[in-house]
Amino acid sequence: MTIAFAGGGLDRADPVRSDPARLAVLTDHRARLLRMDGLDPVLGADGGLEWGTLAEAGDADELVFLGLDADANEHERGCFAAVPPELAGSVAPPSPRLWGAMAAMAARDLATYAGARSLVDWHARHRFCARSGHPTRIAKGGWQRTCTDPACAAEHFPRVDPVTIMLVENGGRLLLGRQPRYPARRFSALAGFIEPGEGIEDAVAREVLEEAGVRVRDVTYVASQPWPFPASLMIGCHAQTDDEAIVIDTTELDDARWFSREEVAHAMTGADDGAFLAPPPYAVAHHLLDWWLSR
Amino acid sequence: MTIAFAGGGLDRADPVRSDPARLAVLTDHRARLLRMDGLDPVLGADGGLEWGTLAEAGDADELVFLGLDADANEHERGCFAAVPPELAGSVAPPSPRLWGAMAAMAARDLATYAGARSLVDWHARHRFCARSGHPTRIAKGGWQRTCTDPACAAEHFPRVDPVTIMLVENGGRLLLGRQPRYPARRFSALAGFIEPGEGIEDAVAREVLEEAGVRVRDVTYVASQPWPFPASLMIGCHAQTDDEAIVIDTTELDDARWFSREEVAHAMTGADDGAFLAPPPYAVAHHLLDWWLSR
Repeated sequence: MTIAFAGGGLDRADPVRSDPARLAVLTDHRARLLRMDGLDPVLGADGGLEWGTLAEAGDADELVFLGLDADANEHERGCFAAVPPELAGSVAPPSPRLWGAMAAMAARDLATYAGARSLVDWHARHRFCARSGHPTRIAKGGWQRTCTDPACAAEHFPRVDPVTIMLVENGGRLLLGRQPRYPARRFSALAGFIEPGEGIEDAVAREVLEEAGVRVRDVTYVASQPWPFPASLMIGCHAQTDDEAIVIDTTELDDARWFSREEVAHAMTGADDGAFLAPPPYAVAHHLLDWWLSR
Repeated sequence: MTIAFAGGGLDRADPVRSDPARLAVLTDHRARLLRMDGLDPVLGADGGLEWGTLAEAGDADELVFLGLDADANEHERGCFAAVPPELAGSVAPPSPRLWGAMAAMAARDLATYAGARSLVDWHARHRFCARSGHPTRIAKGGWQRTCTDPACAAEHFPRVDPVTIMLVENGGRLLLGRQPRYPARRFSALAGFIEPGEGIEDAVAREVLEEAGVRVRDVTYVASQPWPFPASLMIGCHAQTDDEAIVIDTTELDDARWFSREEVAHAMTGADDGAFLAPPPYAVAHHLLDWWLSR
């Protein structure tokens, strides 16, 4: 089963980023520009990503090299996204419309969009050097920003935040929780950011103890997913526990409960008359629940 | 087998960070300050971390709450590190002395030090807001910095960079490479940063293809490790390949070769007369090779 956003839509062609001559050649009339409305994708009548030419970018836009694809004649083409100046400093959340559109997008388009959105958002929110406070400028086809102060010259790279998300099991039942921002009756896997000085297994144990007061053992990795809001790496795990009592951290969760296999299976059919509403198909939690049911 | 830096030396006590009153109580005469020399640890005669009192911190230092431990009477104590102003903006690499000291440090001390070093380094290099360029100030016990410009007020969080590191296998032989910065004859697992829009398995496949021209399949997760230089999360994987020919990316690697099980086993005894020098015990690559030999 495909995990949404993963898989890679384009050849990232890393060496191109450090090769200004090759990058210049790829910025030609064949190059494609991913059409975006702010950070949202512009979708065609078929629900797919729309691409234009580089001529559509504004004079003051920064161009980010997303990677290569090939045209109908198998001639390689540079694929780009634009960072318009009006996006600078913006912290726009995903539009409600986007969540609906993503459910219908093809896997390859979701993967291309995930990388583009994270990268454009990073450029928009990193106009200045965190080390010296001076303005930064785009470098290496958009995979770096460099401080413009020659005395600093710090190099900054796109950020990816690793997050653990975990199914915790006790005797065939799963611990799921709901965050205050969820739609009514939605429950999903607990999750949290990995901190400096933590391994994946450490972070799973800490998060479950913090949020639900449950001590886990036997943490195993299941699957991962890039999550472009703004740039997380979701690391999906499974853990066992012998604890039954749940002590909810009410600053993080509205509720947390044990659900039986039957309750999970019913919710995963998409039914809205069961014990809870399952997470949507593009969420890695959906994939984790599918995996758990199929074991 | 314990993985260096992982495991967690202290109770991170996340709720304390958002509770100024509790944090103030913990900043008392019982509190301990991790002694550091720049970003390096100060080690006692027994090779363990040295702790002092908060009175040792300078007037202009920022205090970072590392977590809780208990004194001999099981009374909880706040544990802190200091960010002195002279560290601001510094990008000091690990001292050569540190690499030797780490090989002798206890697992719990390595874990405590890993978190502290990453956090202190992050504060030193994030004095300014990447969104607006204004100065930032420490918040939430050192787990956040906030822009001092009220019109921006952006919140910044400690950065963790996920990295894939992988053993690639073909018919019982392993692909190992050497980076130009390695000591003579050292070979280790290939590795690279995970980029926005990539899952773990995507990144493994891309890195191995980029650095060695080898296409992998059947990527599985093995183990993870926090790596505090400055703040990576090493995600150790195993992959299979049917390719034999290696095409080295000479901008990344000096060399890459296939090594037999016997050659790996000999190197892992610490012998320096074999086909290569194994990575040191505190590196996750060492753990991956141990895991591979024990299968």
